[in-house]
Amino acid sequence: MPRVNVDVMLKHEILDPQGQAVERALPTMGFEGVAEVRIGKHIELVIDDDVADAEGLAEAVADKLLANPVIEAYTVTVVDG
Amino acid sequence: MPRVNVDVMLKHEILDPQGQAVERALPTMGFEGVAEVRIGKHIELVIDDDVADAEGLAEAVADKLLANPVIEAYTVTVVDG
Repeated sequence: MPRVNVDVMLKHEILDPQGQAVERALPTMGFEGVAEVRIGKHIELVIDDDVADAEGLAEAVADKLLANPVIEAYTVTVVDG
Repeated sequence: MPRVNVDVMLKHEILDPQGQAVERALPTMGFEGVAEVRIGKHIELVIDDDVADAEGLAEAVADKLLANPVIEAYTVTVVDG
């Protein structure tokens, strides 16, 4: 069965408090060298074999349900299918 | 500057209520053909150029801070660098 990953991230102009919190914590934990951290959602979809366009279905689902178009952008990656 | 992505997912044996909620909602929204949905975190790290092993640093950060080893597993992908 095809697997399609959808990564949903805040748009660059939107503040990412979670990412900034991790960014600030890293040096205190001894990690130097991380310039920026951004945190979003990683969604894995397993698509039925009888679906002709697995990537198209994943895009439609991302558009309608997984991402808020006002503040988020998404990328779709077919993993195997 | 190198960019490394870390995807953190619940281990397969752990119940994923978020994923199941989306799975159940899809048919009611007219989407047929999605057999399974799993939802996790997608973290993008921008690493300083002077870091010799960007991937190694991302793995160490994932191990210590980004993933809970009891219930989560992570994958590290160097995007460019």
